[in-house]
Amino acid sequence: MAADAAPRSLSGKVLDVLDAFSADAPELTLSDISRRTGLSLSTTHRIVRELSEWGALERQGRGPYRIGLRLFEVASLAPRGPQLREVALPYLEDLYEATHENVQLAVREGLELVFLERITGRDAVRVLTRVGGRFSLHATGVGLALLAFAPPEVQEQVLSGSLERWTERTITDQGQLRRMLADVRRTGVAISDRQVTMDALSVAAPVVGPDDCVVAALSLVVHADGASPHTLAPAVRTAARGISRALGSPTARRHPAGARRRASGP
Amino acid sequence: MAADAAPRSLSGKVLDVLDAFSADAPELTLSDISRRTGLSLSTTHRIVRELSEWGALERQGRGPYRIGLRLFEVASLAPRGPQLREVALPYLEDLYEATHENVQLAVREGLELVFLERITGRDAVRVLTRVGGRFSLHATGVGLALLAFAPPEVQEQVLSGSLERWTERTITDQGQLRRMLADVRRTGVAISDRQVTMDALSVAAPVVGPDDCVVAALSLVVHADGASPHTLAPAVRTAARGISRALGSPTARRHPAGARRRASGP
Repeated sequence: MAADAAPRSLSGKVLDVLDAFSADAPELTLSDISRRTGLSLSTTHRIVRELSEWGALERQGRGPYRIGLRLFEVASLAPRGPQLREVALPYLEDLYEATHENVQLAVREGLELVFLERITGRDAVRVLTRVGGRFSLHATGVGLALLAFAPPEVQEQVLSGSLERWTERTITDQGQLRRMLADVRRTGVAISDRQVTMDALSVAAPVVGPDDCVVAALSLVVHADGASPHTLAPAVRTAARGISRALGSPTARRHPAGARRRASGP
Repeated sequence: MAADAAPRSLSGKVLDVLDAFSADAPELTLSDISRRTGLSLSTTHRIVRELSEWGALERQGRGPYRIGLRLFEVASLAPRGPQLREVALPYLEDLYEATHENVQLAVREGLELVFLERITGRDAVRVLTRVGGRFSLHATGVGLALLAFAPPEVQEQVLSGSLERWTERTITDQGQLRRMLADVRRTGVAISDRQVTMDALSVAAPVVGPDDCVVAALSLVVHADGASPHTLAPAVRTAARGISRALGSPTARRHPAGARRRASGP
């Protein structure tokens, strides 16, 4: 709470007001916001009025405040958010058309991931993800793909942190997780087999940007029963390479999606 | 420019900094931001630092600033943005699968519209829209559908404003536009025939929310050559009613998508 912390600048308080909203609390009254931010009612009132005039907050009549459309307009300019999603979408659609399973796109943000897109088949396995929502890196396919290619200091922080157990198959042992990440780097594919829910398996591959760094990961999430990750992997890698190429990755340009390395050799 | 306007509060200045970014200028240096906002370099520096710490702005190394992923996370909570899109997506996908043409979803924001989603077929006609981008209400199919059901004062403001001409077929005559809007209200379908570009025709229908007010519009944009809007209208209306029902519209619940009114009568 800001009230208990060091003195907060007014611009910091504006961000605190936005932070008060969450997926669990998408609608808040003035007093909710005041309580959640620790700001006085009068300060809250002043900031909320300015945010509403600008369009960052909205309300219907005298109802509670909600996040406004204007924020969506500004956020649509985020290169690591909607802009990346826009480039990726045709490839996500292709993968969806080919499989009719859940297709997901995520980026790393600090020690977690943020989902940028999810295309869900009607008969696909239920997934917990929400576009714009966060998740830990050590359990999902996209998370393992992002973690495997994250800077060493990020990997160390995640590995030495508390590794939440989602199911009996979630890997929470540091050594085991290290070996799994090494496998992901070697194969270019991350497989999460019932590590988040006992009915789902995901197969993920990294997406590479113009400087050949991993900027995102893409996954297919299917029913764990009878799933064959090694059959799904080529489709996932193909889509991931398509996005990488569209982003200008030099490696993906040299080796077009679907081609084997040796195919472009001498 | 804020510098020339009335004294601007610090929270207003924070919003001015976000406003400095646009689709034409998604990456800005400190001095770009200072120039665009009219704020001093030191004030700009302080606000940019706080926005960066929070994640509303990002930069690569010492490169220019860009809109950050954290803003996308907060914006994902907007009920009239990503939340509405999330409900609509399966119906947009259905319409896309059935037609493989451009499918668009938009909401009204003041006297303009904002695109929430666009699904594009590979062979579909090129469209000018960008998710998160704005457009005028009087030319596109979605725009006409939203304008036809907007409050009277909004309609009057748009009709009496300057009506930009996009093509020789854009309707810029107030009387003609009034008659077209009346047609849209009568038929429940808006058709924009080469009114934005000479190669595209769009067929749109309104989406209705829980209080039976129009909250969004949905369109199919196809090649104008050989297009048969009256053949496309039932599919567009079906998808729009599906979304309305999912949003809890009482009318759409009583008359399920695809059913005629009389089918539920006595």
